Order: sequence, then C-alpha cells, then structure tokens
Amino acid sequence: MPRYSKDQLQSLVSDLAHAIGVPAEDAALLADALVDADLHGKSTHGVSRLDIYLRRIEAGLIDPQAALTVSRQTGSVLTLDAGNGLGQVQARKALDLLIPRAGENGVAAATICNSQHFGALSWYCNYAASKRMVLLAMTNCEPAMSPEGGYEAFFGTNPIAASFPTGKGFPIKIDLSTSTVARGNIIAAEKRKEPIPPGWALNRSGEPTTDASEALLGTVLTMAGHKGYALALMVELFSGVLSGSAIGPEVGSMYKNLDRKQDVGHFFCLFNVEAFLDYAEYLQRVDETIDRIKSSRKRPGVEEILVPGERSARIATLNAAEGIPVSKETFAELEKWCAHLKVPFNCNEAVC
Amino acid sequence: MPRYSKDQLQSLVSDLAHAIGVPAEDAALLADALVDADLHGKSTHGVSRLDIYLRRIEAGLIDPQAALTVSRQTGSVLTLDAGNGLGQVQARKALDLLIPRAGENGVAAATICNSQHFGALSWYCNYAASKRMVLLAMTNCEPAMSPEGGYEAFFGTNPIAASFPTGKGFPIKIDLSTSTVARGNIIAAEKRKEPIPPGWALNRSGEPTTDASEALLGTVLTMAGHKGYALALMVELFSGVLSGSAIGPEVGSMYKNLDRKQDVGHFFCLFNVEAFLDYAEYLQRVDETIDRIKSSRKRPGVEEILVPGERSARIATLNAAEGIPVSKETFAELEKWCAHLKVPFNCNEAVC
Repeated sequence: MPRYSKDQLQSLVSDLAHAIGVPAEDAALLADALVDADLHGKSTHGVSRLDIYLRRIEAGLIDPQAALTVSRQTGSVLTLDAGNGLGQVQARKALDLLIPRAGENGVAAATICNSQHFGALSWYCNYAASKRMVLLAMTNCEPAMSPEGGYEAFFGTNPIAASFPTGKGFPIKIDLSTSTVARGNIIAAEKRKEPIPPGWALNRSGEPTTDASEALLGTVLTMAGHKGYALALMVELFSGVLSGSAIGPEVGSMYKNLDRKQDVGHFFCLFNVEAFLDYAEYLQRVDETIDRIKSSRKRPGVEEILVPGERSARIATLNAAEGIPVSKETFAELEKWCAHLKVPFNCNEAVC
Repeated sequence: MPRYSKDQLQSLVSDLAHAIGVPAEDAALLADALVDADLHGKSTHGVSRLDIYLRRIEAGLIDPQAALTVSRQTGSVLTLDAGNGLGQVQARKALDLLIPRAGENGVAAATICNSQHFGALSWYCNYAASKRMVLLAMTNCEPAMSPEGGYEAFFGTNPIAASFPTGKGFPIKIDLSTSTVARGNIIAAEKRKEPIPPGWALNRSGEPTTDASEALLGTVLTMAGHKGYALALMVELFSGVLSGSAIGPEVGSMYKNLDRKQDVGHFFCLFNVEAFLDYAEYLQRVDETIDRIKSSRKRPGVEEILVPGERSARIATLNAAEGIPVSKETFAELEKWCAHLKVPFNCNEAVC
C-alpha cells in the first residue's frame, strides 16, 4: 500500500474540509483525528471516512459550521449539543471544556447529543492521557446488534474506551466495541468469499450463520453473549439516554440514511490522576504493573505479552518514520474530491 | 432448599457480626449487603460468605472496627483508606460520602484501598439508583485470570457494574465479571464430576482444558479474549493502581491466604441524573428504551427478552414473599458460629 507523510495527509484532509465550509481551525482538528487513526493502524476510522463526511456535508446532513452549545451545567457536569456538527470537532471541543473542570474538581463529565460518527475513541483518550488525565469515553452508534434473545438491530457496536498515561512512551489504551467483531470484518470476509466463524452473527431470521452475505443482512452478535448485551446497554444509557440524543434504532446510519441526520450521542468522564495520588507515584505504579504483565508466564507459542495500546504505538512509530499507508481506493476518493472542490492535490508517496 | 425470612436472616448475620466485634450499625450494613444478595438470587455473594469473614476477623486479618479515612480530597474526588475493615461496610460508607458531593457537583468519584472482598457490586449500584443516581463501580480481586497470551493468574475476575434508575419498579443493573465465567461454575462442575466447555479455562501448563479439576489448578480465561483482558486491566488501573491498594497478583486470596490481609481496591464514580437532564424526562427515555428492547423481534425459541436486572428483581419479589433460600451447608456454618459466639439461634424456616 502506498505511504504518505503525516503532514501531507493532514494538509490534504484539512484543505478539503475547509473547502467545503468547515472553519480552518475545525478542519485542522478533523484532519488530526483522521490521520491519527491511520497513523496508529486503524484505517477503518481514518482518512477513509472523509468521503462520507464530505458527502453528508454537501447533502446538508452535517452542519460544517455548527457551534457546540452548553444546554445544562451542574458543577463539573456539562450537557452539550453538537448542533449536528462534525463529531470529531465537537467532541474534541467538549474535551477541552472538561480538562480545566477535571483539573479543578478531580473529575468532570459531559454528554454530547446531536452529533455524528466521531471516529476512534482512542484519539480523545490519548489526548487526555497527554494531559495526565484518564478519559472514559463511550458512544452510541447506528444499529447493528440485537439484545440477547432478539434479532433486530437495536444497539450500535457501542464502544468503550479509556487511556491511562504511563512512563513507557505510550499510554495504555483500552478501546473496544461491545460486539464480537466489527462489522468491517464480515464485509472483508464477504469480499474474500470466505465463511465467517460461528458466533459472529445472525441471519435475517435470527439463526446463527457462517455465511458472510447472510450475516450482513442480519445482526452482529454482542461479545460474550449477555455480558456484551449488558455493556452495550450501559453505553446506550450513558451516551444515548442521558445525552438526549437518538437512542438505539433511532440513530441514523451514516451510509444508508442519506436523508436524515445521525443524532449520535457521546459520553465522556474525565479524571485528573493527581486528584487520586501524586503523579510520580502513579507513574511508578502503572509502569510496574506493565512490567509485571509483560514478564508473566507465556502460553506455549506466545513470544511476547503486549499491553493494550502497545501494538498501535509501535505501528505509529513505524508509520511516522516510513509514511502512513493509505489504500488506493481511499486516495482515489480524495483525488476526486480535490477536483470537485478545486483543492490542489499535492500529495506524493513518501520517500523516507 | 429451606427458605427463611429476610428479617430473620438479617438479624442473625447482624448478631453474629456484632458478637465478634463489629459495631452494631456496621453489622447491620453487612447483614443488609449479604441478605440482599441472597434475596436477589446471588447466593455466591450472600450469607454463604459470612463464615470466611468471621474466620478472617477472628484470625486478626480483618479489623472489625476500622475507620474509613480520607487520604486525599480534590474537589469531588476522594481517595479513601478502608483501614483493612469489612469491604461492604467501608464501601457503603464511601458511597454515603459521595452522594452529597455528586448531588452538588453532578459527578463524584472515590478510590478505596486497603479493603476486602466487598460482595455484590449491585448492592452499591442499586442503592445509588434509589437516590436517582447512577453508580459506576469496579473492584480488583484475588488473582484468577492471565493477560492475553499468558497463563499466570494476574488479574482477579475484575467486575464492572452500573445501575440506572427506571420507572419500571426495578433498576437496570449491569453487573459482570470480565472473565468468561465465575470460578464458582468450575468448582460446581468439578463437584458434579462434569467437564467444562472449551474456552473457560487453561490448565497449569497454559493449555486449554475441559477438565474442571485441571482448570481449578490453572487460570480462568478472560471474556471475549483480548477485549476481556483490556477491560480487566481497566478495572485494575481504576481500582488498584489509582487507589494505592495491592495490584494484580499482590491481592491476597480470601480463602487461601489465611496469614495476610487482602488489600483489595475499589473504584466508584457517581453521577447525579438530574445534572444531565430533568428526572421526569430521564425516566421517560429510559422506560421507552426498556419497552423498545422488550418488544424487539425474538430469536426462534425465545419467549421473552429481558433487560439486565429484570430477572434478579423477579427473584427478589418471589423470595420476599416465599422466604430466601439458604443452603443447608451455609446454615450449618451459621449454627456453628452461633454456638461459638454464644449468639441465640432464632431462625426458623419461613412459613409463608
């Protein structure tokens, strides 16, 4: 896959977003979010998403200039309205509102309603970790999973994430959907004309299936059965019910519903590490925990035990040095948008 | 199984705890916590645990009169030290410290170090729900699970819980360990001389096993593989690392280590619903969500879709009417303690 420099990609994304009406500062935030996902090897949440965001802005389904407004404030809790703006831009601004509040009060929380797909939760969590804070982040998403016992898409793949600063050069990054697998894995299996493992999905009639095409017409299963259902519901309650956004099946589909807004809801809870213990002591404790985990006995055939976030940090280091891989399909989309929006296309494959 | 009235069981537990040195008010809290678990059908966290608590108090491994002290306070974050007291008593007192803080500030959080096994997380979460608040609760526990790729018991079954008030007569109750199954299920299979399903546990050499006895010498697997590992680590970071308690394998085993304290760590984050939206609007939104879930299409053979907390609420209603079942083994232990501590044994099977 061709690789490009981080700066080139950020400029390109930022220029395109700005050309379609996103204020320059907000366009830079969006570019940072998307390119950061590609940098960390999470291309499903990276530049490949720009096309649909631009399409939705052009169709009037996302307001590129929306303000983030405070609907309610009680102590260090904020109820925010994204004004149907870009998810990444509004959620990052929400986080910037929370940081001083968590600094002063030890903990601060926000819900954000009337938002969109907002990319990788790790971007927000890692930003908080760089401020010596721990962010717990959740979001609801377009319907894909059924409650235990059902087979109607109710919940999104409702992810949960948190990052913890460390002294190891990368934050510990917990970031997981509450589904068995991301829907993208089923799409990939269908493209390869391969079956999917049992336990991933149900078909349209609610029966388990290993046929990828049938699975795509049905629902994705929650991880660990009823436990994933319970966690998906928890995410829906924090992100959807408490925020005032759409709930469950009412959340709009980014790709399928090209006639209405998504109305996604997010939830952030931010903790200032130093409210709990001295930062130096914290770092010692977290680093020792990492060392203990990594030096624990390995199963037969396992070469190394990784902590969550370690693998993506290594990918980011590699990509920063060698360029960030972007698929030809995604790049073709960007070229098309450059022509359409009259943005100069100045991206060359990285020579590193 | 014989059934007993809630009042009789609470008096008995409370009298025994008081007789061994727990102050009357604290003994009543402990009794409420344990009997509440049995009432809700969770006997693994109920009166059956009193024996080991009393044994540990008698051995000087739990301080029955410990004070809960505030080590640090920043805004509405408290770092608490349980003084090696009873987990249920100290954690409930911690929650009572958080409630006014969350009321004023919208959100409040606490870590508690130097604690013990503190029973079912639902007891704390449901109490918060009765105050129109949402509690997110976590705890580390004695080592049972390995990190992904390892086979050394590092994490406890590190549970996560949250309850949400509803207008349906019961709170939504999310309460799950991050292991595939509770260790108790493997113990039960061994007693029945039955194999366990694949995916539950590893043997002493780190190989998957379906032999219950071998599994008990090995480690329990995390739920959903690396996702359960990530969540177990998150719980360890919030409850263990941030609290100043023992971390991972350093946490003492309640039954095996009869020579040292457990030093368990807990984490609470409490949210005042009314900081986010009006309570009446919240209730309408949560109840509609429940109705939508319950009326969604059912898989073949499924009679009813339940929301988390609904089943245990039904069990509690039944047990409140017909008496709470307590196993003969547990009751024999209580009788023995009554004789030992010279506490009158006034419990009769319920005639309801």
